[in-house]
Amino acid sequence: MKLFYSPGACSLAVHIALHESGKSFEAVRVNLKDGEQFSPEFLKVNPKSKVPALARDDGSILTECPAILFWVARTSPEAKLLPDDADGEARALEWMNFISGSIHNGGFTRILRAERFVGAPEHAPAASEKAKADTIKYLTIAEEMLAGRDTALPSGHSVVDDYLFVIARWVPRTGKELSDFPALKRLHDRVAAREATKRALAAEGLA
Amino acid sequence: MKLFYSPGACSLAVHIALHESGKSFEAVRVNLKDGEQFSPEFLKVNPKSKVPALARDDGSILTECPAILFWVARTSPEAKLLPDDADGEARALEWMNFISGSIHNGGFTRILRAERFVGAPEHAPAASEKAKADTIKYLTIAEEMLAGRDTALPSGHSVVDDYLFVIARWVPRTGKELSDFPALKRLHDRVAAREATKRALAAEGLA
Repeated sequence: MKLFYSPGACSLAVHIALHESGKSFEAVRVNLKDGEQFSPEFLKVNPKSKVPALARDDGSILTECPAILFWVARTSPEAKLLPDDADGEARALEWMNFISGSIHNGGFTRILRAERFVGAPEHAPAASEKAKADTIKYLTIAEEMLAGRDTALPSGHSVVDDYLFVIARWVPRTGKELSDFPALKRLHDRVAAREATKRALAAEGLA
Repeated sequence: MKLFYSPGACSLAVHIALHESGKSFEAVRVNLKDGEQFSPEFLKVNPKSKVPALARDDGSILTECPAILFWVARTSPEAKLLPDDADGEARALEWMNFISGSIHNGGFTRILRAERFVGAPEHAPAASEKAKADTIKYLTIAEEMLAGRDTALPSGHSVVDDYLFVIARWVPRTGKELSDFPALKRLHDRVAAREATKRALAAEGLA
């Protein structure tokens, strides 16, 4: 199995979850800054030009962070990375869709890649500033959803926390500090202390 | 159980899925054009100011379209609205995250609500044009993912198809016709012919 990742990107959540799961895998770095995601080789892996992508042992490739996290958890039940009742699953998916769609792509991507969202390059700086305000709004909603817990789900640690850990590392890009979101900070610190997290960070050169 | 919806919005996918499931529910219209999603009453339902939101019989509220679709399918197994093996589930989630994050919020929302993504109102028209091109790119990827099928998943009809049906109805907003995406058009026509779809469309005043 091969995980295609970029250091510190949302693929880090999958990298951590794979270490949590005990699965054996190889981590393959994709150099986003040099545009390697648009290379003919990578387009064969993921026509959407994004990480994470997971090439599984049967040769099939799975994309989209929430889908990969769910699959890793479901195929390693002994690691207890997701609840298995319908309500717990739905709450995990509710979190992951909000993280992926609103906080990440509707927030941080617009801060960092504002030029993709505007019709003229000179419109990008103002769009990036607007995106900072929206991202802070989404992070505030996430903080309220945590309701003081240091786990996304009341049932305990899950792959959702690995995803929120990555988001927490990005908070300074909004102009805020992580300590402005106390529950998210405690979640970050808790996940950072786990062995799987330390191994993934070290493998990505972020330790 | 109450479904909060806006006619023709992505909440239509949940509306259809609820009819497919056989669950009893009440559909409550939220008037997005008048800003009802920002009213104090609706903020209590969903602080994210979005439809769909599902108020379940135990009083809890579930949000985010893929999470609600998954929950409806999982709690009505006899309706066979999702595969139940780990790979089939992951493929359904891969589709739904792409639909929600890229096609809908990274595409159509930017066409229709360009002013949300730019720093100055006069930047909106150019941003909307850029978004049309991006949305067509995402729809082209979806067409390739369908690989000629009229179902998102090779295993047959699923809630993912209800979601793609709603997306298919929006295609003209890009300047393209639905017939420019032949597999998506066949999926649309197949889903349109189902009784549950007809009932949901009629209930939303779209028949």
